[in-house]
Amino acid sequence: MSKPRVTVWNEFRHEREGGAAEECYPEGIHAVLAELFESRGFDVETATLDEPEHGLTEAVLDDTDVLTWWGHAAHEEVADEVVNRVQTRVLDGMGLIVLHSGHFSKIFKRLMGTTCDLKWRNEGERERLWTVEPNHPIARGVGEQVVVPEAEMYGERFDVPAPDELVFTSWFEGGEVFRSGCCYRRGSGRIFYFRPGHETYPIYRQTEIRQILENAVEWAAPENADAPSFGEVPVGPERRD
Amino acid sequence: MSKPRVTVWNEFRHEREGGAAEECYPEGIHAVLAELFESRGFDVETATLDEPEHGLTEAVLDDTDVLTWWGHAAHEEVADEVVNRVQTRVLDGMGLIVLHSGHFSKIFKRLMGTTCDLKWRNEGERERLWTVEPNHPIARGVGEQVVVPEAEMYGERFDVPAPDELVFTSWFEGGEVFRSGCCYRRGSGRIFYFRPGHETYPIYRQTEIRQILENAVEWAAPENADAPSFGEVPVGPERRD
Amino acid sequence: MSKPRVTVWNEFRHEREGGAAEECYPEGIHAVLAELFESRGFDVETATLDEPEHGLTEAVLDDTDVLTWWGHAAHEEVADEVVNRVQTRVLDGMGLIVLHSGHFSKIFKRLMGTTCDLKWRNEGERERLWTVEPNHPIARGVGEQVVVPEAEMYGERFDVPAPDELVFTSWFEGGEVFRSGCCYRRGSGRIFYFRPGHETYPIYRQTEIRQILENAVEWAAPENADAPSFGEVPVGPERRD
Amino acid sequence: MSKPRVTVWNEFRHEREGGAAEECYPEGIHAVLAELFESRGFDVETATLDEPEHGLTEAVLDDTDVLTWWGHAAHEEVADEVVNRVQTRVLDGMGLIVLHSGHFSKIFKRLMGTTCDLKWRNEGERERLWTVEPNHPIARGVGEQVVVPEAEMYGERFDVPAPDELVFTSWFEGGEVFRSGCCYRRGSGRIFYFRPGHETYPIYRQTEIRQILENAVEWAAPENADAPSFGEVPVGPERRD
Repeated sequence: MSKPRVTVWNEFRHEREGGAAEECYPEGIHAVLAELFESRGFDVETATLDEPEHGLTEAVLDDTDVLTWWGHAAHEEVADEVVNRVQTRVLDGMGLIVLHSGHFSKIFKRLMGTTCDLKWRNEGERERLWTVEPNHPIARGVGEQVVVPEAEMYGERFDVPAPDELVFTSWFEGGEVFRSGCCYRRGSGRIFYFRPGHETYPIYRQTEIRQILENAVEWAAPENADAPSFGEVPVGPERRD
Repeated sequence: MSKPRVTVWNEFRHEREGGAAEECYPEGIHAVLAELFESRGFDVETATLDEPEHGLTEAVLDDTDVLTWWGHAAHEEVADEVVNRVQTRVLDGMGLIVLHSGHFSKIFKRLMGTTCDLKWRNEGERERLWTVEPNHPIARGVGEQVVVPEAEMYGERFDVPAPDELVFTSWFEGGEVFRSGCCYRRGSGRIFYFRPGHETYPIYRQTEIRQILENAVEWAAPENADAPSFGEVPVGPERRD
Repeated sequence: MSKPRVTVWNEFRHEREGGAAEECYPEGIHAVLAELFESRGFDVETATLDEPEHGLTEAVLDDTDVLTWWGHAAHEEVADEVVNRVQTRVLDGMGLIVLHSGHFSKIFKRLMGTTCDLKWRNEGERERLWTVEPNHPIARGVGEQVVVPEAEMYGERFDVPAPDELVFTSWFEGGEVFRSGCCYRRGSGRIFYFRPGHETYPIYRQTEIRQILENAVEWAAPENADAPSFGEVPVGPERRD
Repeated sequence: MSKPRVTVWNEFRHEREGGAAEECYPEGIHAVLAELFESRGFDVETATLDEPEHGLTEAVLDDTDVLTWWGHAAHEEVADEVVNRVQTRVLDGMGLIVLHSGHFSKIFKRLMGTTCDLKWRNEGERERLWTVEPNHPIARGVGEQVVVPEAEMYGERFDVPAPDELVFTSWFEGGEVFRSGCCYRRGSGRIFYFRPGHETYPIYRQTEIRQILENAVEWAAPENADAPSFGEVPVGPERRD
């Protein structure tokens, strides 16, 4: 199988506001993720909110096998037309990896059908990400747990459909748990929600987290299956009079 | 548990056009379903597309435990505001039973996140509805199979998320199969998609089909669980410095 | 629906050995559970390992709607014949609730097909049991989390099939997580694995835990569905020459 | 990834009895399957019931990535010790593909925990195998349906746990349906039950069926994940006094 073509989408607002986010990701979260995927030999493009059509034109999506999505403060600024376009491509087979605060993005809520709400608290708590399904492709080479030294906490109830496969569950210092690695199949596409990551913690520079992201891209890449056909069909082949 | 309050929603267009649908359901599909649920002792209201707000005001939905949905030709005429309202109520716990051609309703596509597309052919074929999970509450008293003498065929691929529980699978004379009884949990609500039924076949008068519909209402009725809380939470109870 | 008939099975060895277990459950864990279920109006019997046939004769099982299982030190002493008998009854519709160290019982391993292994540590850690599916019948009236002041820790990887429904996930003081409330459907029967409980902690006297156990019995009670038929069937009803 | 090492296991009794089975598979079903997998470049061995230890020694299983299992008339002759050995290897990561009448094998019942019973009728009916999940790796290149001209019918209720993924559903001329392609994850291993095939029909010579079998082997091959660890663990890393 050829290496997947990845488009890294980033809201890219926090990192241009001169605070902790800019310090942590001076060129944007997308730059760090793009560098990661390039280092794995994937074919990588980036796209951000403030580009025309948010950088997600038909042409870009047609050339994308897996789209990663990071957004936080400006979910509402994403145009519905672009959300429709991404949803259509996912249902046609494009993989989608939704990162951290992307749980509240229009595209994730659209594909899940639920509020995708959760509990949260940002105090730089330690997170322990436990591998619940060690034989899942997304857990390959990850080990039994990953310790994230400082993280924003997300806690249950996470209001999503029960995942088709639950790969990771997080423990937080403050007393909460969270289903942090959730696989979904929707239409011909695969979706992975992955909790870790935040604009002010260097989580996307952490080795084990990068391993998971690489695995997730490979898992989410399309099978290039024949598209199923729909609509009216002629007289049933078995029908006899 | 008290008997559920059911609102039967119907597009109610075909049955006023003077053809086979009017012959089959002269007072509307909703009238037949309402009579069924009343005969079971449920508290029943009806609502139709051409009423103000399609009959689905906040007040009506607040008093509804389970909403049944039949639509076919006018899905696009359902106002997005009403779709939003119904979605919110389902996620808050109201049950939803989506009937036959309701697979293409805005509300079902909204809650599933997929196209909900399928194959179809209307030739009055025999359908055999097989019980795949005989111990499911929705299969109670139904037996191993239900023969529907004449039906519109729906065939796989049915483009929905894999159901949380698959209760029935249909066989069609013409050679197709279909996942005809699909359970989903979304938010605090339960959703049942049930394939049989059509505006020109008296399927909703058939005893076994009525048994399934009664069962489905009872299954979909809310647990009256405490609503989960979401949003920012204070310092973690376990956090120590 | 009439109240379920519950048989509470207990290994009943630790509590007769004069140590912490006897102090905690002087008349046996089964006595405390029996008292709980009786207080809910259920019809309750108890059975223990050292009775003939472990107290689980055909007659007893035939009169049981839901069997609860607590064992720890003597799993291997349970006769295979009795395990076969219990498995058959579960597949025929009897509910089974497997408690805590019962994860390693012959009957649970038999029904799961896996090792059912896990990590553990007994240091009296605090456990926080989070409700992942607040609208599940087993979570009724339980609230968002239950704090167990002192518990033996069980940690992931828990080597079971992915549960059909995951209701609770535990957080432990020492840093682990665990899928603590797992629902399975096997044959015509329902199985609930529930982690909390131990012979030296008064967990089965805790109000919220008792609420969950009551809910679990009600959920696991059989639907009294018609048994499906199996084996050779005559010429297909649709077969034409 | 290197090509998987496949061991094709066959009961190999029917084909030596001089009737229709011998005509259809003169050198045994295993010979036809072995030839298929060799033609795909896999590393293939065969093993049969009447060999010592049924040909499934520790050494053979240690060198096997995916085991395929065909049995029918002599399930009871398979030694429990060998069943234990195969189960252990599956839980440790070996893939298992259970074919047709293998539904009643000791190893499949052991791994499922249920009776695995079903309805059947052997009249050479036409079977239509519909692809329910077209984007599943096992459906790659298969198309929307596969017509098997003559088959033994298997009908629901199929008494297995709800599959983790349902890939194919069959339609039969006589009026039945069946969940014919069922994926399970158990321990670190993957299991695929595939219905088509019979000792007197040349189904394993059919192109589309062979494509599915090749896909299934690739899907079931182990990830070579790190084995999870189990048992007592030391003081929790987060425990503070």
